[in-house]
Amino acid sequence: MRFLHTADWHIGRRLHGFDLTEEQQNAFDQIEKIAIKEKVDGIIIAGDLYDRSLPAEDSVALLNQMIEKLNLTDKFPIYAISGNHDSATRLSTGSKWFQQTHFYLHTRLDQAFIPIELADTQLFLLPYFELFDAQQYFNDDTIKHLDQAFKPIAAKMKSLFDPKKKHILVAHFFADGSATTDSETQLTVGGLASVPVSLLKDFDYVALGHLHGKDALHADNARYSGSPVKFSLSEANQQKGVFIVDTGPVTFTFKPIKPLHDVRKLTEFFATLTDKQFYEQLPLADYFGVTLKDTKAIPNVLAQLRDIYPHIISLDRENGYETVVDYRGESGKQIRQKDPMMLLADFYKQIANDDLTDQQKKWAATALKIASNGGKV
Amino acid sequence: MRFLHTADWHIGRRLHGFDLTEEQQNAFDQIEKIAIKEKVDGIIIAGDLYDRSLPAEDSVALLNQMIEKLNLTDKFPIYAISGNHDSATRLSTGSKWFQQTHFYLHTRLDQAFIPIELADTQLFLLPYFELFDAQQYFNDDTIKHLDQAFKPIAAKMKSLFDPKKKHILVAHFFADGSATTDSETQLTVGGLASVPVSLLKDFDYVALGHLHGKDALHADNARYSGSPVKFSLSEANQQKGVFIVDTGPVTFTFKPIKPLHDVRKLTEFFATLTDKQFYEQLPLADYFGVTLKDTKAIPNVLAQLRDIYPHIISLDRENGYETVVDYRGESGKQIRQKDPMMLLADFYKQIANDDLTDQQKKWAATALKIASNGGKV
Repeated sequence: MRFLHTADWHIGRRLHGFDLTEEQQNAFDQIEKIAIKEKVDGIIIAGDLYDRSLPAEDSVALLNQMIEKLNLTDKFPIYAISGNHDSATRLSTGSKWFQQTHFYLHTRLDQAFIPIELADTQLFLLPYFELFDAQQYFNDDTIKHLDQAFKPIAAKMKSLFDPKKKHILVAHFFADGSATTDSETQLTVGGLASVPVSLLKDFDYVALGHLHGKDALHADNARYSGSPVKFSLSEANQQKGVFIVDTGPVTFTFKPIKPLHDVRKLTEFFATLTDKQFYEQLPLADYFGVTLKDTKAIPNVLAQLRDIYPHIISLDRENGYETVVDYRGESGKQIRQKDPMMLLADFYKQIANDDLTDQQKKWAATALKIASNGGKV
Repeated sequence: MRFLHTADWHIGRRLHGFDLTEEQQNAFDQIEKIAIKEKVDGIIIAGDLYDRSLPAEDSVALLNQMIEKLNLTDKFPIYAISGNHDSATRLSTGSKWFQQTHFYLHTRLDQAFIPIELADTQLFLLPYFELFDAQQYFNDDTIKHLDQAFKPIAAKMKSLFDPKKKHILVAHFFADGSATTDSETQLTVGGLASVPVSLLKDFDYVALGHLHGKDALHADNARYSGSPVKFSLSEANQQKGVFIVDTGPVTFTFKPIKPLHDVRKLTEFFATLTDKQFYEQLPLADYFGVTLKDTKAIPNVLAQLRDIYPHIISLDRENGYETVVDYRGESGKQIRQKDPMMLLADFYKQIANDDLTDQQKKWAATALKIASNGGKV
């Protein structure tokens, strides 16, 4: 059999304030195309369908439409679990009806032990769970760490293994030794929240969700599919996509998704960034994390850059920010003895590269008078 | 055919701070029993399934479980619409799958014109809609009032009538001439939000939601089922229940629901209310709206009454509140000339029916000294 493995859609997520609906819709369209082209027998979604436990109405409408498309229009079976960003209860709405069209959505720990029985494969859908859920389910309050919880989970699943079939686990957790980016919520509290890869060894393939990069983990039998869209600047160099997993024998192949608007890092001088010859080569609607090589103050720098690059998601300086204006080596004491109007004119000259007009001087004189008068006009 | 008509479940609603989950679960159990006993062919829910557009997780879990019970366990077809309290988008999640088991949930105006075709009946499910939706649907921005919107809606439905069948409309609005209680949200803004009963005449039965009393409207062919649970003191004397609607010929019969804990009005003197001989006759776990016949101040009156009646939902006075303590006809000027400690002792005597202790007098003296010293200790 052949499955498409995706995860971490995070519908409703924003990128530094920018709406990602279009990106997410576009990535979804590509996932759908890959599924059709690869003639997969089902689509695995390994958690974090929504970005928030209480998604906005627009997000609900968008995810509903995507799932309806895959399952009802395209007739793909779906094998999905809730992640730490989803509300298991809210997400589970309707799930008892969904099974009629082979859309399996598991949101409770006990459901992990009802394998989906397919022609040559058993699929175990293990949703994100809290340690408390595991303590309750196994009636064992000595479970204090995720690896302790996962041992009886894996053992119970193994006891259900049909030896004639392949065994795929779909799960949403941090697998020990994985590499993180900035866009995942830390699940680790006191180191209790990771599962050693060795505990996954009995499965033919483990379709993971939670980490957003496909290269977060390189185990023999386990992969994070990664998110279909870049969610932070730290993912700028990641290749997003999905895995196509075959079961006889088990192989997995990465299929890339092309971003509608990419996330890019730009490290340059302001003068270069605002040089038409430079920027007209660039896909200006992309999301840019800009690092300035300049050290001098640049007035209205973000506004000026956004006139050219509308989707700047961060701005910093490669060599720090020279906050001190050119004061010719004078000490603080020397400076304080200078005429305030002179200092202001000097400052303005450096920032605005211009002299104060007569009107500006008048305003400044009035303001200084009020200031020296204790705020009274 | 035979239908059960209910509405306005308002799952998640509270009654003056008291959780109504148990009442709602109990009323639901009775509705289910009536449906089974009456062997109905389907259950109509005329909007406001939830109390809020963003229901709490517990409410989501409760409604999901109720609907699963009726539709998946008991195999009743369900014909439901969204009301003004529901989020149409959120509520619609899964609705495309629900139809496979004859659970029809309409949340958009355009769905009102897809009648559910049953053996001898056409069911039109018209969800709550905004005037803007009607303007858009009919491409007519001269629609400024609900009756103007309803005319083309009724006409379009009529054009779809199968003359060999009965025609039932399920809707959620304020029908002109209905009587309201305190617990419905006013839909009327500038009088635009009511539908004249005359516009409903072409339907054999109109199953309405929105108003919470079954007697809000007594039209030949239309009823509000009312809510299954009392949601305000103004509903204390209402009989809650559901309608059983038969289609050949059209008749409708009211079936009562017995409250788990009723809502009652009590108008009595405090002395009577706290008299064991009086209150031991009463179902003390009920919700009481208490009106005191007393006019004197009673210290800690609500706390004292709640020791006996834990679910007091309101407290007022039949003859107003005699706020003035007995000051023997003295003028304000005369009173101000009196010793403050004397005044305090007098006040305490009237409120607490006791003399100040020596310790209390000491505290009061200290406090008065600080007060006369401008707040300084």
